[in-house]
Amino acid sequence: MSNDILKQLTAILEARKNNADAESSYVASLHQKGLNKILEKVGEECTETILAAKDAQTSGDNSDLIYETADLWFHSLVMLSHLGESADAVLNELARRFNMSGHDEKAARSNT
Amino acid sequence: MSNDILKQLTAILEARKNNADAESSYVASLHQKGLNKILEKVGEECTETILAAKDAQTSGDNSDLIYETADLWFHSLVMLSHLGESADAVLNELARRFNMSGHDEKAARSNT
Amino acid sequence: MSNDILKQLTAILEARKNNADAESSYVASLHQKGLNKILEKVGEECTETILAAKDAQTSGDNSDLIYETADLWFHSLVMLSHLGESADAVLNELARRFNMSGHDEKAARSNT
Amino acid sequence: MSNDILKQLTAILEARKNNADAESSYVASLHQKGLNKILEKVGEECTETILAAKDAQTSGDNSDLIYETADLWFHSLVMLSHLGESADAVLNELARRFNMSGHDEKAARSNT
Repeated sequence: MSNDILKQLTAILEARKNNADAESSYVASLHQKGLNKILEKVGEECTETILAAKDAQTSGDNSDLIYETADLWFHSLVMLSHLGESADAVLNELARRFNMSGHDEKAARSNT
Repeated sequence: MSNDILKQLTAILEARKNNADAESSYVASLHQKGLNKILEKVGEECTETILAAKDAQTSGDNSDLIYETADLWFHSLVMLSHLGESADAVLNELARRFNMSGHDEKAARSNT
Repeated sequence: MSNDILKQLTAILEARKNNADAESSYVASLHQKGLNKILEKVGEECTETILAAKDAQTSGDNSDLIYETADLWFHSLVMLSHLGESADAVLNELARRFNMSGHDEKAARSNT
Repeated sequence: MSNDILKQLTAILEARKNNADAESSYVASLHQKGLNKILEKVGEECTETILAAKDAQTSGDNSDLIYETADLWFHSLVMLSHLGESADAVLNELARRFNMSGHDEKAARSNT
């Protein structure tokens, strides 16, 4: 199942964050340009997601919507990484809200 | 591990989407109000995430950032659900980009 | 002509900024809540403007578009006021870009 | 006074909208790319305005804020133009809200 993807992606993003060669990595270049540049991308992809959702409703074709939402999530992961957080903290917050009991225990174990 | 959270959350969101009683469910009420209302929330939470990230950089406290990013992801999941998609399509797109070949197979094993 | 409106509005916004009674004035309450609240409104109205523009293109009815753009400009005026600026600085920047040389002189004459 | 600037700018934008040569005009190229491209720019400049406002509050330097707000207003004028509206409709809506009595009458006369 795709559930493992965010975990793999988080590891990839952390590796690229510390990549010495910004030329070779889009992620490293974002970190070097700094938080404002990363947040500009988050805002930009959010607008593109909203436009893609409006167009998907009209056309019935969701391919752009999926592509733009992936861009939005990707850049929000880079933002979290830039500020020393990862997807886990956000997913745990979502789990807490929805009373997904048992998850903290499982997560605790998997972190050991 | 927390990777399972998106899967559980997707199931919860689908169940609430079809909840007959919008009064009792925020998710059902969003679907009844329609796509524009859902997209307004996505845009609103994106702005709040950006502001929280700026404040986190100054204060060193990431708690608001995590909370607002959870809001952003949550409302983007409702958006996907409203248009007949789920997190899986977006995660698969991210996996494709990062060459996580065989991810379906590997992830399946890691869940057993 | 309507060109005078921004000038009048700037004066109104400045007067309300310093209004002692936030209860009685939406503008004063925004200033009291602070910059983040004002910027949340700017972002929110921007999303609503974008949605209204998409819907106007489909429906041919521009009334929501005008209403939401007014909201966006209004809240950006409050933002400028909060940070000690007014519409004039922004309009002068626009004039500079478009080479409206002598605009101060011409505009002065057109107001007499 | 700068009040005349929006009127001049509206005229410039209308002239450039119908410019045959998109290569030579940023405005014409935006119109040719279509509404989504224009709205992407509106959203992008809104995010940059919000970031500039946060930075202005910290630094006390408003120059970026003025520059980015000019970008936001400029692209919202192009959006209005693309959909057959101009700044006047938005300014009249603002005047209506703030009870700027007499303005409609004056505006009516100036349009004759």
